[in-house]
Amino acid sequence: MSVTAARGFTASGLIAGLKPSGKKDLALVVNTGPADAVAAVYTSNRCKANPVLWSEKASANGRARAVVLNSGGANCYTGDFGYETTTLTAETTARLLGDVDPGDVLVCSTGLIGVGGQDFRDRIIDNLPQLVSTAAADDAGGVDAAEAIMTTDTVAKTSVRTGDGGYTVGGMAKGAGMLAPGLATMLVVLTTDAAVDAAGLDAALRGATSQSFDRLDTDGCMSTNDTVILMGSGASEVTPDADEFSAIVKDVCLDLMHQLHVDAEGAHHDIAITTQGAASEAEAVMVSRSVGRSNLFKAAIFGEDPNWGRVVAQVGTTSAEFDPANIDVTINGVRVCQASGPDADPELVTFERTVDVVIDLNVGDASATIWTSDLTHDYVEENSAYST
Amino acid sequence: MSVTAARGFTASGLIAGLKPSGKKDLALVVNTGPADAVAAVYTSNRCKANPVLWSEKASANGRARAVVLNSGGANCYTGDFGYETTTLTAETTARLLGDVDPGDVLVCSTGLIGVGGQDFRDRIIDNLPQLVSTAAADDAGGVDAAEAIMTTDTVAKTSVRTGDGGYTVGGMAKGAGMLAPGLATMLVVLTTDAAVDAAGLDAALRGATSQSFDRLDTDGCMSTNDTVILMGSGASEVTPDADEFSAIVKDVCLDLMHQLHVDAEGAHHDIAITTQGAASEAEAVMVSRSVGRSNLFKAAIFGEDPNWGRVVAQVGTTSAEFDPANIDVTINGVRVCQASGPDADPELVTFERTVDVVIDLNVGDASATIWTSDLTHDYVEENSAYST
Repeated sequence: MSVTAARGFTASGLIAGLKPSGKKDLALVVNTGPADAVAAVYTSNRCKANPVLWSEKASANGRARAVVLNSGGANCYTGDFGYETTTLTAETTARLLGDVDPGDVLVCSTGLIGVGGQDFRDRIIDNLPQLVSTAAADDAGGVDAAEAIMTTDTVAKTSVRTGDGGYTVGGMAKGAGMLAPGLATMLVVLTTDAAVDAAGLDAALRGATSQSFDRLDTDGCMSTNDTVILMGSGASEVTPDADEFSAIVKDVCLDLMHQLHVDAEGAHHDIAITTQGAASEAEAVMVSRSVGRSNLFKAAIFGEDPNWGRVVAQVGTTSAEFDPANIDVTINGVRVCQASGPDADPELVTFERTVDVVIDLNVGDASATIWTSDLTHDYVEENSAYST
Repeated sequence: MSVTAARGFTASGLIAGLKPSGKKDLALVVNTGPADAVAAVYTSNRCKANPVLWSEKASANGRARAVVLNSGGANCYTGDFGYETTTLTAETTARLLGDVDPGDVLVCSTGLIGVGGQDFRDRIIDNLPQLVSTAAADDAGGVDAAEAIMTTDTVAKTSVRTGDGGYTVGGMAKGAGMLAPGLATMLVVLTTDAAVDAAGLDAALRGATSQSFDRLDTDGCMSTNDTVILMGSGASEVTPDADEFSAIVKDVCLDLMHQLHVDAEGAHHDIAITTQGAASEAEAVMVSRSVGRSNLFKAAIFGEDPNWGRVVAQVGTTSAEFDPANIDVTINGVRVCQASGPDADPELVTFERTVDVVIDLNVGDASATIWTSDLTHDYVEENSAYST
């Protein structure tokens, strides 16, 4: 399944030796057409990795034939040499595919920042011939690619949906930490055989990411490499209704986002923070995100402590419209705070892996949810020992 | 020392039984005059605790004769009953002091949010007679008060400086977590016997806090109770030069801020993040604060990992003026990143308790330092088990 569920795509994944673990670390997705439409969304971090700098330019014309991805180093802050590695990767892949412009090959990298030297380059370039020659349209190709982009992920993430008339949208994702606004340390490749031009793909993708990946904020840290790509082959010859297509793309993005959420580094609880009764959706997002970034709140949830005071205190740091004396907080169905004061006994709150926090600002009708993780010993451990 | 170092002040501290630990938890500082000038800075959190709501109004006229502080509950989000407890505290204290208006008694609370019921009120009110009757101008009174405002602090924080002509500025502080912008979970009472009116105190205090407490950001969380009060008795009959007075007040604030920093909850490293070469001081603060709030960076420092990539990635999330390809990062004197790429071998960086990170944006002459803490297992432990 994954990126090969839609017709008109092949994929592969192999061990290039970039990862000390010896696991798969190089992946390819090829759009075999007939169309070569593409849309992409990149990190809003101003200090971008080399592959992002390359791919932003390469995808600007709405055309792409392939994406090469590695999970053995971010190729970020590696200077001119790193950028040359990216262009060399695109050029070599284009030549091996035959009749493809290097500017139609996108490149993604993930892993440690600062990694991207001669050895990194050699292992990628030397393995491209096998990567291209083994690209297949079957399930195995899609699975190999999904596995080859994993870093600290514990499972490969894939999703497939079918639209009216028989077109398909499928995809793969990786990302387990640094998941924050304007995407995450997250690479996502989506494919569709629907007959949709680049502008249509772009509209659907931006709408979907703003309501899915952009609302996953596991640790408040924004990556340098985030990329979400949607390629259209047109192979189904089905031209979908724009709204239906957008809904299907959003559905796939939400599914992948939830898979990223439950696999977040070191998380013991998967927290959904919904702000309702807000004056606008933007203010609901602002309030939920603010609470989702409070280390005190996140540590309290780790301790299964329904500490609503830390929620209200965090709401107070935002510029959203609300009456400080009229905020309600419900945790796992128990309204522990009503009108900014104690309500039900917090002892009544029971905890499972999933935690639902609902904040009611009581001023309007808008609502939004942000998904985050608790702050745990495992998070500290994974992120203090990662590069050493 | 502490708040009784300056002439014209008495202080006391006692065990009111608010804290399960049985330690001192109720404090008083009285300005015996001749002047009764006051200036104060409060949390910018919009969801403020009851004592803050009261004291903001009470101090607005620039006069105060006393401050009552407790460390056994925040009296925050406790509704009308909580506000009545605050007014009752001020009224009772005013009556016991004699010839004092209740509006000239400020109130501060710290501890758990939501704590402030009948028992909390009774223990405070019942102990006010002894608190007032034992207030003394000697060192012991100042020390008792400084000890009685501690929560998770491991040591009492006091500071004293003397100005030209023989006037004194002294103070006490508490706060060990939730130390973030617009102050911290921090109560500070400063006293001076300089002959400075309320406007002069206010100018000196705002200048000092903006350069000291406002730049301490241990965990990004803003408290609901933060209060910094500066009372002037005029008892020295010295009218200081305004600039010299401001410098002395700032010096005391910086000293107390550093004492708060090194006692921050769960910290293993005291981190100073200086951004230099910035276009403005505000942008230098923005960049340093952003890095100081990155959980990935804070966890890396806990692991003594000079992970400069996480620094540059965080700089990229800000709107400050810089060239993404020309950022330098120096950690403990070793320039590990030059022009946004690797420089000296990170293995050369050695770690002690104090960590200095210097970010050079290479675009201007402005600089600023933010002080923060690393993200440790102890932080997670303290804040996940705090209220349960």
